[in-house]
Amino acid sequence: MLFKVEMKVNLPTDMPAEVAAEIKAREKAYAQGLQEKGKWRHLWRVAGSYANVSIFDVEDNAELQDLISNLPLFPYMDITVAPLCRHPSSIHEDDR
Amino acid sequence: MLFKVEMKVNLPTDMPAEVAAEIKAREKAYAQGLQEKGKWRHLWRVAGSYANVSIFDVEDNAELQDLISNLPLFPYMDITVAPLCRHPSSIHEDDR
Amino acid sequence: MLFKVEMKVNLPTDMPAEVAAEIKAREKAYAQGLQEKGKWRHLWRVAGSYANVSIFDVEDNAELQDLISNLPLFPYMDITVAPLCRHPSSIHEDDR
Amino acid sequence: MLFKVEMKVNLPTDMPAEVAAEIKAREKAYAQGLQEKGKWRHLWRVAGSYANVSIFDVEDNAELQDLISNLPLFPYMDITVAPLCRHPSSIHEDDR
Amino acid sequence: MLFKVEMKVNLPTDMPAEVAAEIKAREKAYAQGLQEKGKWRHLWRVAGSYANVSIFDVEDNAELQDLISNLPLFPYMDITVAPLCRHPSSIHEDDR
Amino acid sequence: MLFKVEMKVNLPTDMPAEVAAEIKAREKAYAQGLQEKGKWRHLWRVAGSYANVSIFDVEDNAELQDLISNLPLFPYMDITVAPLCRHPSSIHEDDR
Amino acid sequence: MLFKVEMKVNLPTDMPAEVAAEIKAREKAYAQGLQEKGKWRHLWRVAGSYANVSIFDVEDNAELQDLISNLPLFPYMDITVAPLCRHPSSIHEDDR
Amino acid sequence: MLFKVEMKVNLPTDMPAEVAAEIKAREKAYAQGLQEKGKWRHLWRVAGSYANVSIFDVEDNAELQDLISNLPLFPYMDITVAPLCRHPSSIHEDDR
Amino acid sequence: MLFKVEMKVNLPTDMPAEVAAEIKAREKAYAQGLQEKGKWRHLWRVAGSYANVSIFDVEDNAELQDLISNLPLFPYMDITVAPLCRHPSSIHEDDR
Amino acid sequence: MLFKVEMKVNLPTDMPAEVAAEIKAREKAYAQGLQEKGKWRHLWRVAGSYANVSIFDVEDNAELQDLISNLPLFPYMDITVAPLCRHPSSIHEDDR
Repeated sequence: MLFKVEMKVNLPTDMPAEVAAEIKAREKAYAQGLQEKGKWRHLWRVAGSYANVSIFDVEDNAELQDLISNLPLFPYMDITVAPLCRHPSSIHEDDR
Repeated sequence: MLFKVEMKVNLPTDMPAEVAAEIKAREKAYAQGLQEKGKWRHLWRVAGSYANVSIFDVEDNAELQDLISNLPLFPYMDITVAPLCRHPSSIHEDDR
Repeated sequence: MLFKVEMKVNLPTDMPAEVAAEIKAREKAYAQGLQEKGKWRHLWRVAGSYANVSIFDVEDNAELQDLISNLPLFPYMDITVAPLCRHPSSIHEDDR
Repeated sequence: MLFKVEMKVNLPTDMPAEVAAEIKAREKAYAQGLQEKGKWRHLWRVAGSYANVSIFDVEDNAELQDLISNLPLFPYMDITVAPLCRHPSSIHEDDR
Repeated sequence: MLFKVEMKVNLPTDMPAEVAAEIKAREKAYAQGLQEKGKWRHLWRVAGSYANVSIFDVEDNAELQDLISNLPLFPYMDITVAPLCRHPSSIHEDDR
Repeated sequence: MLFKVEMKVNLPTDMPAEVAAEIKAREKAYAQGLQEKGKWRHLWRVAGSYANVSIFDVEDNAELQDLISNLPLFPYMDITVAPLCRHPSSIHEDDR
Repeated sequence: MLFKVEMKVNLPTDMPAEVAAEIKAREKAYAQGLQEKGKWRHLWRVAGSYANVSIFDVEDNAELQDLISNLPLFPYMDITVAPLCRHPSSIHEDDR
Repeated sequence: MLFKVEMKVNLPTDMPAEVAAEIKAREKAYAQGLQEKGKWRHLWRVAGSYANVSIFDVEDNAELQDLISNLPLFPYMDITVAPLCRHPSSIHEDDR
Repeated sequence: MLFKVEMKVNLPTDMPAEVAAEIKAREKAYAQGLQEKGKWRHLWRVAGSYANVSIFDVEDNAELQDLISNLPLFPYMDITVAPLCRHPSSIHEDDR
Repeated sequence: MLFKVEMKVNLPTDMPAEVAAEIKAREKAYAQGLQEKGKWRHLWRVAGSYANVSIFDVEDNAELQDLISNLPLFPYMDITVAPLCRHPSSIHEDDR
């Protein structure tokens, strides 16, 4: 089941650089792990911003909550979620 | 070059059913043609709405404008566009 | 899987009374059918408005889209959707 | 008398972990106490967020204010309230 | 139990004058009837607008819905509702 | 001359408890003094919030500014003001 | 007593030209009459719009409502009002 | 050339009183100097707020930027600007 | 003196095609005339929309109002205006 | 390929003056370097603000992201981006 997830990162401007670097490193590892498992199907940067557009592929709402709330950057992000489903005009097999 | 495009359809509630059906048929044919050409990479329905989330793959801004402004439903839609690019944490080759 | 759905009805003020009555009758029958099937778990009026707050219980996003887009009042409503899941502090068994 | 209450938690990102843990523990105990008393009828997590959707069942507006303003997380939350009442199409006896 | 109710009237600019006059006459009679019964405790015009601020005194949410949804101008108004209760600093006995 | 005034209190979450208590005590005394003088005609808590709805009765705009800007909580509040006047359908003598 | 009043005109695009011309002529006469009486102290066009910024000088809120609600263009305008008073740093005698 | 300028002051609530007093004193002197030169034609307090409505009279956009960006309170204010010009219905000679 | 002007066109969906074509032809001729005179320095389409971003070069606010209010599409557009001036970091001679 | 980029600077009011000066100096050098390379085609101050309107000329979305995210002021700015393309009514050769 797919969800569009948009994340905007708002790190405090006075966060020490090494603290920020450590959180970002954990975020990257976490994000890549979920991509490898097929849970995070797409991950794009929005050009001109510190934000992304993502497509998550999860079992249900509970798994979506589990995956998102464990993001290392979760406390620093504005996040919006939209449930997706197959569009009757889609010809792409995996645009479920 | 990828763009996220979100479209919300607002057909006038007094549009005759056969007029609406004809526009929607043309929209579907047009959308499937662009998908076949690889220009419209993803097309999802937002669950609970008459709206979609799409990913377009175009040469440049001019082609994006050309493709969107020729949508048969263009006069009836609220459309928002966000330019995308590769995210440094993406592992998917085609999340350009 | 639960979703909160909020619906605000905006009937055109010049819709003939009998047309409105017919749509509302179909809406009521449809809503009660979904309640009987357990798909529409809660349905409340928001006091002081022509709007409701509902809880849907569906298999997945696709079923949510199917049920909502077939509402007889669908073309006349502003609808917002929020995916729900179990809250760690809930003690109610069916607050899934 | 029912109210929909939506709560979005905004803990300061520099709050010490043990302070946050202590407030959350008190919040959980308080929330479960109100659920046991039948005052907090439903409590759902909004998937992908640190927010909830709740249904309160109170005697009157004054009790609603009393229950909400004593939430341990009250100073850290954005809260919206909507008064609910029976919907003429509801078939659920306790959707008052 | 008190509620602040704000109403903004949006009559279609092409409504025939006599139709508008007839609705307004019924609205006035209805509003004065509720005031006489003590249900509509205060009614003020917002200066510079076709809008009002009102204080309703009702048994519960259901009565609020009943009174508001029967306003002759109901289909033509944007309405917002806020539940009120006694403020700990109030010295006015009937600011319940 | 009447004004509706809405005040939403936003105390910094790190303000020491005794400082907050002292400001609130001064606010309460100030609010009750203005009520006794007939300047602050109504004061209601908005249920589920740290906010109030008030009706001020002043000589003119200058007095309104004087009374509001001297509120001890003034630096910590979002305040909105609406000028009121008699509604042609009001039957209450003092809904001026 | 001064008020800033902002008016944005939204004439229906299908209003016959002679009807619009007649309303605008009445609006102009009305506006100039109030200026001559000193009630409408300033009237500026906002450059690039069909909108104005005005300063009204009235006895009280009731007179403001009376003057604005009788504007021939009143049913076609979005209007916002802000009560003004003397600023402690003003050196202009009539910036009351 | 006239501009409407609206300024809302947001001093940090933890700014030491003497620092605030010093900035405000400089702001007042600066504002009065511009009024004496005829650059700041009107300055009103918005009743019930820490905000003002002003009319600036400048040579061009560059001078507007120069005058506003040198306000001692500039870093602490939300500022909006609207270009004004003569309204065809104005009878006031200096409502340019 | 430069202004950024953004225009969003909202033609009624039931406007006859030949009426729309005639207005657009006049708009194009008007826009090209102003470009030839140097008044309309830049004109870009916003990709994915029926909107433009423009830079006007005018004597003063009054000329801006004159040029914009005479656009054939003026009654059908949402227009926003921002006054521009030289940026201290610009190296382009004509970024005045 | 052109993009309109709008940047609003929000420096923390407690940032030491020399830190701010150093960041601004780097920002200026960076901005002038991109202008010299033809990447930053226009740069205007919005009069009455600490904001700018810019036109970027880039190869693609990825370059836009690269240029913007390396702005020394990037962590302190609200930035919005709009993709531009040639307008059919433009007569300026380089309004691509």
